[in-house]
Amino acid sequence: MLDTQHIKAFVDIVGQENIYTDKAHLIAYSYDATRSKFEPDAVVFPRDEKDVSEILRYCNEHNIIITPRGAGSGFTGGSLGINGGIILGFEKHMNKILEIDMDNMVAVVQPGVINMDLQKKALEHGLFYPPDPASEEHSTIGGNVGENAGGMRAAKYGITKDYVMALRAVLPSGEIIRAGKRTIKDVAGYNIAGILIASEGTLAVITEITLKLIAKPKFTKTAFGVFPSVKEAMSAVYKTFAEGITPVAMEFLDNLSIRAVEERFHKGLPKEAGAILITDVDGSALNVLDEQMQKIDEVFKQNGCSEFKIAKDENEAKDLWFARRNCSQSITIYGSKKLNEDITVPRSKLPRLLEKIDETAKKYGVLVPCFGHTGDGNVHTNVMVDGSNPEELKKGHEAIEEIFKITVDLGGTLSGEHGIGISKAPFMRLAFTEQEMELFRAIKKAFDPNNILNPHKMGL
Amino acid sequence: MLDTQHIKAFVDIVGQENIYTDKAHLIAYSYDATRSKFEPDAVVFPRDEKDVSEILRYCNEHNIIITPRGAGSGFTGGSLGINGGIILGFEKHMNKILEIDMDNMVAVVQPGVINMDLQKKALEHGLFYPPDPASEEHSTIGGNVGENAGGMRAAKYGITKDYVMALRAVLPSGEIIRAGKRTIKDVAGYNIAGILIASEGTLAVITEITLKLIAKPKFTKTAFGVFPSVKEAMSAVYKTFAEGITPVAMEFLDNLSIRAVEERFHKGLPKEAGAILITDVDGSALNVLDEQMQKIDEVFKQNGCSEFKIAKDENEAKDLWFARRNCSQSITIYGSKKLNEDITVPRSKLPRLLEKIDETAKKYGVLVPCFGHTGDGNVHTNVMVDGSNPEELKKGHEAIEEIFKITVDLGGTLSGEHGIGISKAPFMRLAFTEQEMELFRAIKKAFDPNNILNPHKMGL
Repeated sequence: MLDTQHIKAFVDIVGQENIYTDKAHLIAYSYDATRSKFEPDAVVFPRDEKDVSEILRYCNEHNIIITPRGAGSGFTGGSLGINGGIILGFEKHMNKILEIDMDNMVAVVQPGVINMDLQKKALEHGLFYPPDPASEEHSTIGGNVGENAGGMRAAKYGITKDYVMALRAVLPSGEIIRAGKRTIKDVAGYNIAGILIASEGTLAVITEITLKLIAKPKFTKTAFGVFPSVKEAMSAVYKTFAEGITPVAMEFLDNLSIRAVEERFHKGLPKEAGAILITDVDGSALNVLDEQMQKIDEVFKQNGCSEFKIAKDENEAKDLWFARRNCSQSITIYGSKKLNEDITVPRSKLPRLLEKIDETAKKYGVLVPCFGHTGDGNVHTNVMVDGSNPEELKKGHEAIEEIFKITVDLGGTLSGEHGIGISKAPFMRLAFTEQEMELFRAIKKAFDPNNILNPHKMGL
Repeated sequence: MLDTQHIKAFVDIVGQENIYTDKAHLIAYSYDATRSKFEPDAVVFPRDEKDVSEILRYCNEHNIIITPRGAGSGFTGGSLGINGGIILGFEKHMNKILEIDMDNMVAVVQPGVINMDLQKKALEHGLFYPPDPASEEHSTIGGNVGENAGGMRAAKYGITKDYVMALRAVLPSGEIIRAGKRTIKDVAGYNIAGILIASEGTLAVITEITLKLIAKPKFTKTAFGVFPSVKEAMSAVYKTFAEGITPVAMEFLDNLSIRAVEERFHKGLPKEAGAILITDVDGSALNVLDEQMQKIDEVFKQNGCSEFKIAKDENEAKDLWFARRNCSQSITIYGSKKLNEDITVPRSKLPRLLEKIDETAKKYGVLVPCFGHTGDGNVHTNVMVDGSNPEELKKGHEAIEEIFKITVDLGGTLSGEHGIGISKAPFMRLAFTEQEMELFRAIKKAFDPNNILNPHKMGL
């Protein structure tokens, strides 16, 4: 618990109206999408970078733990104050789009800006901000940078890190640093921006983000393919890319996922199919998109696709995407508790990965509906269990651990976009050697010698 | 000087045939493109990662300085053993392209592979490795990663860091670490690969590099525009991009550069022009390229372009590129010593930058021919002086310092692609605060507590 003297110090910095210490608010800031709950001692809303600096300096002197928080939409507990201390909230004041620089195709934003607000603002200027995590309607750019958020468009357009040009951030000492430039090239000094991205708020508090925007592609085409088996669908995925075509997205649903959506929404989906693939291509020339679609049709059919549809217009495209968009909520029919992972493997390993997941599900007697961003090798793997049954929960967790092992053996990663936080911390030992973990700890110490910034996350 | 006991230890690791200690070889490894000379005590050629690990462990125990070296083609002294010790050379053994993975569009290479060899090998597989530093014929991928090399295609395709997916590296302790994965998404743990890129061999020795390859664009078109003034040409550059067109390259020569090439090669270049721009667009649809060229023609003419040519075929394209390709060697007519910098600003600041450089040149009474990669804001600024005249050399260095100040004031960087090394180390204070430098030093210490890896570079 923070004593009143500390609370008073924070009030002196940000004003009474910018700090919460009452129970109701502490509960409101105690959870994220993991549904774990950890009540902080206070929630503090800095008005600007100077406030952030003063708060950090004070906390560093008094060993008070700080957890920066965007929208609290993370899947791994990155924004949870697991050791108490204060939550630093950016949604109240530091939520402005500061600049859209048309000449250099750059946006400058504060960390509390909601992803979709930036996407919309860019579009108003004829520009495009591609990273689109499923949480885009509420997650913040600060959180997106902290977790290096991905999304559906990553196969073609990459992820958050590919758009961060520069950052301003505050070190635990209260010192303000700048990293990167509004230039494509910058090789002066260590790449501090590069290491702050995906550092889950453990190294510094980001106060301003300069992002690359790109020209909006003029046209998009959507197609939908039905496959007898997941394995054949997964082969179709990597073979499409190997043909030199780079779809914006190539998303899949396995049979369990298809059936769940159909059960809930009765859309006439192919309930017997092993898998479906939904794919978008975009660009500035319709004739090229048509050529690409023809090639995709060929590759899909060579890999067992029994039905291939191309959307004629935007409404049809929306229909084809319906199953994917409503998949996550639908699969809850299989169990009250979803152990949801976002493992990622090199695309060519997808057929083997899905085969092994199937074996694991059978071995542990659990259902594991899978869907997700196969265009970039990222599979949302959902081990569904009865949350009230400890026996089943235990089996579920064992299955997850086995799936992580399989993923790492296939050259994959524990997390494609959700981060490590607390949820995946126990599995870091599967992916990293003790020496690699020691290096992470040394870097953490270089930035945050007193370990006040989001400590004990990422298995550190 | 290394005593014989140390030399014997290295011989035990790599064998007598993989170590040079004779004067002739030490001289051969004493310089790079800066023309500075520092003789190392020995040059050691590891045969594999295990050798690298044993060498580093030994050096760490005995406080022997190590400088990793690619082709020694750097412009800032990154590969010079300024404090003696050993040079670690990769061109003898660790120079293999280990894998071209077509399914995942990935290349795996050792650090000693020459950039152009990788480009060619990728092309044989219908794939494309875009980073093309001017040194592409001899510089190595290891050096490219260490310096985060750019090149002509950066405006559209980005730079080395945009292609590095994973690294293997050896820490000074001899421990081998892996960073990154053969996947588009990977957010587990700190982004170690991200900070090793551009770290100029000061943090770890890179032993294996996994690179993203992309599909080769089918068509390229080249155009050439003549402008009355540099300012108008620079406006044309940033306005082209702001129109949503992303040329592969948009390179410029100023009047001094044009005249130098013309003087040497008599190609009928417009000697009175303020500047010329040469630009390539590429893609998979000729109709789109034609549209883009039409738009570029418009934008150029709106910004004073008096003559606009589009190459009809590859030979004409080569002709249009001639001036740019032969610029660097031609400008030596202006002075025996070239103080060559690679400052970079946000594109919209190019007109102002060139204006200020012109003022500075006049103020110090030196000639400063400029050319380079304006498509990404990167200007090769060459202060030409008589190297035998100390007075003039002094003025040249003063002009350089002023140009750096102007660049930083315009939101630019000291280096777009050459790195800091020793050449730009004195100017780090212009670009970074003492706190930022302290953070760099703390990171250096986290990786290399005994400071044996390329110490005293980058102003650290």
